[in-house]
Amino acid sequence: MSYKEVEALDIAFLRGVCGEENVLAGDAISVDYSRDEMTPEDMRCMPDVLVKAASTSQVSEILKYANERRIPVTPRGQGTGLVMGAVAIHRGIMLDLTRMNKILELDEDNMTLVVEPGVLIMEVRAFAEEHGLYYPPMPGEKSASIGGNVSTNAGGMTAVKYGVTRDYVRGLEVVIPGGEVIEIEGKVAKNSSGYSLKNLIIGSEGTLAVVTKIVLRLVALPKRTVSLLVPFSDPVTAIKTVPRIMKDKVLPVAVEFMEGDVIKAAEEYLGKKFPDHSAEAYLLLSFDGATKEQVQRDYEVVAQLCLASGAADVFISDTQERQDAIWSARGAFLEGIKASTTEMDECDVVVPISKIAEFLKRKVELEKKNGLRIRSFAHAGDGNLHVYILKDAIDEKAWKVKLGAIMQSLYDKARELGGQVSGEHGIGFMKKSYLAESAGPVAIELMRGIKKVFDPNNILNPGKVI
Amino acid sequence: MSYKEVEALDIAFLRGVCGEENVLAGDAISVDYSRDEMTPEDMRCMPDVLVKAASTSQVSEILKYANERRIPVTPRGQGTGLVMGAVAIHRGIMLDLTRMNKILELDEDNMTLVVEPGVLIMEVRAFAEEHGLYYPPMPGEKSASIGGNVSTNAGGMTAVKYGVTRDYVRGLEVVIPGGEVIEIEGKVAKNSSGYSLKNLIIGSEGTLAVVTKIVLRLVALPKRTVSLLVPFSDPVTAIKTVPRIMKDKVLPVAVEFMEGDVIKAAEEYLGKKFPDHSAEAYLLLSFDGATKEQVQRDYEVVAQLCLASGAADVFISDTQERQDAIWSARGAFLEGIKASTTEMDECDVVVPISKIAEFLKRKVELEKKNGLRIRSFAHAGDGNLHVYILKDAIDEKAWKVKLGAIMQSLYDKARELGGQVSGEHGIGFMKKSYLAESAGPVAIELMRGIKKVFDPNNILNPGKVI
Repeated sequence: MSYKEVEALDIAFLRGVCGEENVLAGDAISVDYSRDEMTPEDMRCMPDVLVKAASTSQVSEILKYANERRIPVTPRGQGTGLVMGAVAIHRGIMLDLTRMNKILELDEDNMTLVVEPGVLIMEVRAFAEEHGLYYPPMPGEKSASIGGNVSTNAGGMTAVKYGVTRDYVRGLEVVIPGGEVIEIEGKVAKNSSGYSLKNLIIGSEGTLAVVTKIVLRLVALPKRTVSLLVPFSDPVTAIKTVPRIMKDKVLPVAVEFMEGDVIKAAEEYLGKKFPDHSAEAYLLLSFDGATKEQVQRDYEVVAQLCLASGAADVFISDTQERQDAIWSARGAFLEGIKASTTEMDECDVVVPISKIAEFLKRKVELEKKNGLRIRSFAHAGDGNLHVYILKDAIDEKAWKVKLGAIMQSLYDKARELGGQVSGEHGIGFMKKSYLAESAGPVAIELMRGIKKVFDPNNILNPGKVI
Repeated sequence: MSYKEVEALDIAFLRGVCGEENVLAGDAISVDYSRDEMTPEDMRCMPDVLVKAASTSQVSEILKYANERRIPVTPRGQGTGLVMGAVAIHRGIMLDLTRMNKILELDEDNMTLVVEPGVLIMEVRAFAEEHGLYYPPMPGEKSASIGGNVSTNAGGMTAVKYGVTRDYVRGLEVVIPGGEVIEIEGKVAKNSSGYSLKNLIIGSEGTLAVVTKIVLRLVALPKRTVSLLVPFSDPVTAIKTVPRIMKDKVLPVAVEFMEGDVIKAAEEYLGKKFPDHSAEAYLLLSFDGATKEQVQRDYEVVAQLCLASGAADVFISDTQERQDAIWSARGAFLEGIKASTTEMDECDVVVPISKIAEFLKRKVELEKKNGLRIRSFAHAGDGNLHVYILKDAIDEKAWKVKLGAIMQSLYDKARELGGQVSGEHGIGFMKKSYLAESAGPVAIELMRGIKKVFDPNNILNPGKVI
């Protein structure tokens, strides 16, 4: 499909809609907009024009204009993605939504919070907490925008107990490429009224519609939280403990798996020490609840179970300060690994939790076979692994070959184990071929058909997902 | 769109696929297949042929055949629906899935249960409990099939704490009209791999694909359950207590609202007494948890709050026997109301919980204005109301006129309050016009487009939803 080039006339129109200062073209656009957090050097791509929209009606006008003229539009939040979902690979208009960053309404009766897509995850969480409420999803990247999280259906560490972004979206306001604005669902807690357009748009990575408003569901703020750091002598023993914990009738908030070398990289990056880094592998667990006694009962059951399963020790963190220290270090894993190498790529597979150990065996084999460092950590309680293949000092050509072979082998293994290509980072541009293999031609054809229903001219985030 | 008539040749083909004894035609088909639980006398409709499929491959062969020849196919489980979703309004083939009733695999490591669509809800729940696990969704109709529940995204009484069917479906195997079989997701706990076909098919009422296998998520079986029956002197005081409970940091499993006359109808129907029926209105709450202390702490907080909000008393049921008595009476409300009249129609709206009182005001006004009995009960904790308009002794013509006016007024009010047409019963054939009004033309056009992607010949449950 061929697109229309952006011309002076188009820029003038966009300036008319959003104001002179909110429409940048050519060299005025920062190179930051050519990439996300994991775009390889040779795949960066600048949009022709960057438009900072401030309202639903501006988004609607822009989409209608672009759709009529076949100009590609790439929506973008904070650009913290890892699969090039928010990179304008066909150039055209980059639709920056960061100015749409207002918290619009807290409805305490219905426990809902209405926000614009540009509000950051950390802002949503902090605002809720100020009002004694809780927005549970906790992706590693808390400076991501809520719109981006809705687009990828991000999950993060608390998914074990609380679920993922999808579970906290009650309603959406979206603009489809024709420029029409639709309100979907709202503040209701249940719905069986036609096909779930809401659930279809969540996780569609900005390819079906632009989300302009989100009705979030909040829950009661847990009164007590305790974290356990549990060292193990080897990764397999640690990981095999996870299904035992999950079956044990006590539901942790988070069950994170990490290896010693990843902790060390995070320590180096942050310049701060983790409570312990001497073991080869760790589980990091957290528990919450309404009373001290309840939380204590829960974590004691799990602590005993870990010790019985071969844990070397159990460190209990029950002050906010100690917990913040551990979890902020955990939040720096990705940055720590990134800072330790020249370039890297990642794989965000999710497998049934009973299969994590088997998947990690493949990782170890590939590391040995290819002589490359591969680092990983896992949301072990929900089977979601983040695996990073590090380039370090090898040359570009060898890197591309080895990277391709390793990725293919990892995704093949995930598929064999009943897993999926992405647990929370999405498909974007980078993982399209793996999704095609994993989902199969019939499902991909259905997805293509759905894309065409929303976006017949293929102007909205083209070249992504499918 | 015109369909091909079912001929002897077609019946012979179907008998070749499913066996002589599993394909019935003409008068051999029981009249039960002409209706669901709420089909008006004059809208009953017999299929031309009833096929009892036993496997995915049979379903696939039947759909492929019907699709090539444009014969309508209406999938059906137990036929316990309330909106004619499983009535063959275009005749053709009725695809009975009740023989696909096997529990295929319990995976305790991943806490999943794989079932065929014909397994009953009560069987799923009982099987899980035998293994110390819990399948939370609890619709009033426990003899419904799990396939039917997936089709409507049924919720029921436990949705307040546990969510609805959608939240317990990890994966699906489905057959699309072309006959292709697709496995969607699986046992994984998180997923961000392309458009969520799983969530699109859940709640699509058998119009996009036939579900042939379901991977359910189970949770730990709560060790203690306690119910509270709370009488109030009037409905408004009762219903206004609900948002207060929901905000109170204690999450009940269920918050049901009921009026005295509905309880009396259920008592008459069952021939059993409810613990109390003297008050005008009641809240029925349940709490669960891991320990007696925790559950007690929770319900005591709420009991105090109810008394402070004007409750006349609080009856505590902490034995299994007493709870079963209450909840089985609650489960008989629909049947009780139905037995008390000649004919009825229902409205299954969902509104934000803060708006329930206002919605019920409209019900009272309509009852007075039209001189018809209108009965209702509500899953008050999630805003889902079931309202029944009873024909009693008025003549057919006046009934149709009044029913139409009352329904329109109820749905108008729901829309005004930010509500939706259906909380859990679905749209089927009966509620299509209300969905069209509520969702609006743009959303309906998107749904139509999606339908066409899955089912270009419109053979699968035609005339439903949109």
